[in-house]
Amino acid sequence: MRPEDRRTAEGILFTDQYQLSMAQLYFRQGLHEQTAQFDHFFRRYPDYGLHAAGYCISAGLAWLVDWMQEVSFREEDLAYLRAQRNATGGQLFGDDFLAYLKGCGGFDSLSLWAIPEGRVVHPGVPLSIVRGPLAMAQILETALLNQLNYQTLIATKAARIREVSRASMVLEFGLRRGQERGANAGTRAALIGGADFTSNVGLSSTLGVPPKGTHAHSLVQVFLALGSSELDAFRAYAEVYPDDCLLLVDTLNTLESGVPNAIRVFEELRAKGHRPVGIRLDSGDLAYLAIQSALLLDRAGFPETAIVLSSDLDELVIWQIQTQIVEEARRYAADADAILRRLVYGVGTRLVTSHGEGALGGVYKLVAMQQGGTWRPAIKLADTPSKMTNPGLKQAWRLYDDRGQATADLLTLEEENPTKAGQLVLRHPNDHTQQRILERAALRAIEPLLVKVLDQGRLVAPLPTLEAIRAQRDHDIAGLDVGVRRIMNPHIYHVSLSQPLWDLKQELLAQLRQSL
Amino acid sequence: MRPEDRRTAEGILFTDQYQLSMAQLYFRQGLHEQTAQFDHFFRRYPDYGLHAAGYCISAGLAWLVDWMQEVSFREEDLAYLRAQRNATGGQLFGDDFLAYLKGCGGFDSLSLWAIPEGRVVHPGVPLSIVRGPLAMAQILETALLNQLNYQTLIATKAARIREVSRASMVLEFGLRRGQERGANAGTRAALIGGADFTSNVGLSSTLGVPPKGTHAHSLVQVFLALGSSELDAFRAYAEVYPDDCLLLVDTLNTLESGVPNAIRVFEELRAKGHRPVGIRLDSGDLAYLAIQSALLLDRAGFPETAIVLSSDLDELVIWQIQTQIVEEARRYAADADAILRRLVYGVGTRLVTSHGEGALGGVYKLVAMQQGGTWRPAIKLADTPSKMTNPGLKQAWRLYDDRGQATADLLTLEEENPTKAGQLVLRHPNDHTQQRILERAALRAIEPLLVKVLDQGRLVAPLPTLEAIRAQRDHDIAGLDVGVRRIMNPHIYHVSLSQPLWDLKQELLAQLRQSL
Repeated sequence: MRPEDRRTAEGILFTDQYQLSMAQLYFRQGLHEQTAQFDHFFRRYPDYGLHAAGYCISAGLAWLVDWMQEVSFREEDLAYLRAQRNATGGQLFGDDFLAYLKGCGGFDSLSLWAIPEGRVVHPGVPLSIVRGPLAMAQILETALLNQLNYQTLIATKAARIREVSRASMVLEFGLRRGQERGANAGTRAALIGGADFTSNVGLSSTLGVPPKGTHAHSLVQVFLALGSSELDAFRAYAEVYPDDCLLLVDTLNTLESGVPNAIRVFEELRAKGHRPVGIRLDSGDLAYLAIQSALLLDRAGFPETAIVLSSDLDELVIWQIQTQIVEEARRYAADADAILRRLVYGVGTRLVTSHGEGALGGVYKLVAMQQGGTWRPAIKLADTPSKMTNPGLKQAWRLYDDRGQATADLLTLEEENPTKAGQLVLRHPNDHTQQRILERAALRAIEPLLVKVLDQGRLVAPLPTLEAIRAQRDHDIAGLDVGVRRIMNPHIYHVSLSQPLWDLKQELLAQLRQSL
Repeated sequence: MRPEDRRTAEGILFTDQYQLSMAQLYFRQGLHEQTAQFDHFFRRYPDYGLHAAGYCISAGLAWLVDWMQEVSFREEDLAYLRAQRNATGGQLFGDDFLAYLKGCGGFDSLSLWAIPEGRVVHPGVPLSIVRGPLAMAQILETALLNQLNYQTLIATKAARIREVSRASMVLEFGLRRGQERGANAGTRAALIGGADFTSNVGLSSTLGVPPKGTHAHSLVQVFLALGSSELDAFRAYAEVYPDDCLLLVDTLNTLESGVPNAIRVFEELRAKGHRPVGIRLDSGDLAYLAIQSALLLDRAGFPETAIVLSSDLDELVIWQIQTQIVEEARRYAADADAILRRLVYGVGTRLVTSHGEGALGGVYKLVAMQQGGTWRPAIKLADTPSKMTNPGLKQAWRLYDDRGQATADLLTLEEENPTKAGQLVLRHPNDHTQQRILERAALRAIEPLLVKVLDQGRLVAPLPTLEAIRAQRDHDIAGLDVGVRRIMNPHIYHVSLSQPLWDLKQELLAQLRQSL
């Protein structure tokens, strides 16, 4: 795409046509400036087919805010809209409406609440809330969903990979397999959710994290094509990077050529006072090769060197490799724990594409409209109860039990304050037969989850650093029941409605059904 | 992401760290300016789990070329590289190497051959070939794979959806579910592969295609929240868009509220001389609702109105809907063919994420190095024969049988000219027992597939318009055997090696194995 086209395609017209059609309709009806509130939430955890998530990690907010503050209706954008034709050849968007958009500029009229990045989040709880003039709040929908859904999806996948990887380092390698420039958002989300480092140079630069990477098969191929050998290629690498020497050993034959050659080079490095870093395995039976390589490296006196594994890894593949190593190490009298401790996981395609579930179905739903100074709650009917929205202005709270573990998220009406209540009634969002009653005294803490980020376009909460976001993630995940953290068949974490919110929802549903 | 960060993360540092590590190594070894050739190809068609592709559609080239011509090593990029540290705290990249990169500027030294966008492509055949100085050709790898893999993946998915949709219009709706800005690449690829239009406003603008979209559930919700009705919302829509009136009818109850209200509004429009466009169904049993809606619309005298279906559609879901309509229409004495003809498919998440297979595993492999004026072929060994590369400088040809159908793609050495041969030997790429012999006289045509696009950075082939790309796609798909076009269990299209290429490959493999 040419740069001038990119400014258009990534600016305020990064939206769906129907947002603009609706905005003009609201303008014609005099509704465009009426204050509306939209909730953004996802309805279910990612389901990867053979396994599913028990929680998600929120991500994407900082880039959404940057985008909202950057874009506006430029003359070129308005000219394009002016040129659009309706079915009879007339102007689709009227000059008066376009003048209104020009006057709006960008999203300065909107306020935004959000659950901060790095936090554990659950279905049905608003990840973000937008309040402002109906027309502009509607136009924002597409970009908001695009930014928050994808990064939350990838941060969640990364958290799962982090979970199975335990103390091992996780490297993100997916830049070549992401969706064009969007792969950068995947890298960032991976670093938020669980990857320690990435191979992505540009994004590392912007986040202040050192990028990781050594060499590819092509290095060995170049030397072979020119009549030299794998050993020559490794020696050349060691010469240039004597203290950062990590060698890819599977270009020819891992155990008969790659590892023995690496060991020769490591010995040469050691003789010169350098400390070799390790090897990388990128094909074949990774568990078997890791054991055998570890044995060879141990025998040569390099028990500290890392073994980086890559090649279509994800949480299940890593788990399988670990299981196989534990079982198979015995056969070779190898120390399985020591092998597992030296492993590093390089995760590419399956992280950046969220293998098994390539999208988070986050939605953006109208929950209230202001009319004459009072808020009128909005709801959406649906064939399936789980698709009904929770109406009105709301707050989201996290309840911690007496061990300090998160026990439920609670949605209340905005005016409720559960921290002051003696007893809390937790209603299931849809099933009227299910409810829990909690004594306030039995809870260690009740924490509000949503933070006001933009007040009419102005940033009112600092956007945390990557380091702070990761600390928040670690804190939140540590606060989850171990069953919720399981990568297979996780426990269901409770998301509940307060009694007043439940009552409002039932009242609106009854009204709507009566009107049909 | 802030704009200045974006310039970094989307510029020439949109690459993996190991490309730069290797480039510096080549620089130190004096190999950086030696001419190398890399082939980019994919090893297998996308496999969506329950079904698989029998061909792919090439896409992404124009944006790759734009990017290659735009980016270069800026002072900021070099400063970042200069600041990177090795394990002992020294400068990872030397000033001499950075000065070399600065002198290179960008990718002006590279030449690029490619199979044009919109063409049918098959595994193992180079989609693109890069020739130029080793260091810069290596640095390009990540961005080339990122751009061409994703768009080819999505153009392929779109072609499958186009295949099952037959004469129906296909609309792309995936902007909110793609990977951040990369969703624009998905939109473009969808339009190349099979979607007629998209809801994506900005990208439509840059491609000169009108965007499509009418309204969301929120329009009806707004009216309900303010004490009005679905009918009022529809009337407001019809008033603003009397000749473009397409109404979403499932906000409350499709058959009891949405469709009857739409029909009332359509009747009012008709009375004023307007022609209503149709309805959209976005939830529930789409086949059943399409039949019932069609019956209601027919009875009201609107047999021409379109019925747009959306909600997690993909090629299998569309096929299922069509099958159900054919079977179930009888029960209601409805004309199934007439219903199918009026359907329009809106495809979002599952198109832009390539549901079932979220990445195309395209790779970029060294195939030759120049040394003292002669080319030395390169190969990569692998545990599995299908992962071995085809060495050397090559040409790719498509062979058409006497019916004019594509019968095989043939890879030859660069110096071969199969159009002049009396007889062609087609060797299976890996299986030595399989070969076919074709008489030249039995072939209607032999067509070279690769076009030189960049000659040392200079564009030497015009980049075709979207219209021309789509015409190429239609031509190529029409030239495929119907069995190859099947969405389930497609026939295997033959990709073969010429006898000289086969011999070269065997010779190199034998040499390499001997050296181990």
